[in-house]
Amino acid sequence: MPLVRISLIKGKPAAHIRAIADGVHQALADTFGVPADDRFQLIDQHERDGFLYDADYLGVHRTDDLVMITILASNWRDTARKQALYQAIAVNLARDPGLRREDVMVVLSPNQRDDWSFGKGLASYVTPA
Amino acid sequence: MPLVRISLIKGKPAAHIRAIADGVHQALADTFGVPADDRFQLIDQHERDGFLYDADYLGVHRTDDLVMITILASNWRDTARKQALYQAIAVNLARDPGLRREDVMVVLSPNQRDDWSFGKGLASYVTPA
Amino acid sequence: MPLVRISLIKGKPAAHIRAIADGVHQALADTFGVPADDRFQLIDQHERDGFLYDADYLGVHRTDDLVMITILASNWRDTARKQALYQAIAVNLARDPGLRREDVMVVLSPNQRDDWSFGKGLASYVTPA
Repeated sequence: MPLVRISLIKGKPAAHIRAIADGVHQALADTFGVPADDRFQLIDQHERDGFLYDADYLGVHRTDDLVMITILASNWRDTARKQALYQAIAVNLARDPGLRREDVMVVLSPNQRDDWSFGKGLASYVTPA
Repeated sequence: MPLVRISLIKGKPAAHIRAIADGVHQALADTFGVPADDRFQLIDQHERDGFLYDADYLGVHRTDDLVMITILASNWRDTARKQALYQAIAVNLARDPGLRREDVMVVLSPNQRDDWSFGKGLASYVTPA
Repeated sequence: MPLVRISLIKGKPAAHIRAIADGVHQALADTFGVPADDRFQLIDQHERDGFLYDADYLGVHRTDDLVMITILASNWRDTARKQALYQAIAVNLARDPGLRREDVMVVLSPNQRDDWSFGKGLASYVTPA
């Protein structure tokens, strides 16, 4: 059910970007109970001057490897689950493609179960498919 | 009031994309009570490898014609209205540009009436324009 | 904490776009209590036919200079604060880069404090960094 947007500066190899997408999805599966086949991700590659970030906000030192990940997902998860998700994404992306954990930013955007239609004109989590 | 983002794989003819945008707007007018002139839509065309989807999640078979439509809209609609919207979008896009209804995905992102400014620095639905 | 997306038609000078980004951030600092170094902004430049807007909705006359600004931010601000934000953004962008106030559209997208991770795998506003 999550719809994931992955934003980063243009120019990374395809394998780098794919590893990010894979790592985010695995973290969602491991901590948010997202099924393996519930995967929908959009990649936005920005020009350097179209991707503005502060290099030190909250004392976290960021570089041009920064990836901003926004996840539209239903709002029934509690804080502990969200913390587990952030941790899992950072760990996965540190392993592959080898990002610094400071360069992984995640923002959740909440909606409801009846806000999703996965095709056929149905509210997929409300009406029987 | 809705702000619509239409995401699809790069390479479709302009008329195909325009028909999708038109069909989504007509569905919002018919089911969500959106005025004909309340139309604001952004089109995001992605490279094939920047548009990741599962081809079978929930038993719905998707192809590279898939369009992901996210709609930021105020959250006062009930489930029945949302179901009518999903149905209308799928019907409209099946007619023109002829998409399979399985290739139409819709996600709502809720906000409030005071979250909108349509210009002039005003909260358009709160302050008199 | 806000994550800002600035969408406009392709072709404006870099200084024009930078002035928009600066003006939005200054307005957030002045009215929403956002720290100067809490700045994260993504710029989306669209082809003309991928940026659809109504030129007169609500009696506000818009041109191709229109900028659509969406701001993902925690939902604890009241209506008065939001009104101050819209006003400040319009005033700032009218001064520089000299936009008409009718060409400044702002939409807020609300989330919660525990929906943010600014790096290191932590829920930045919940766990001590």
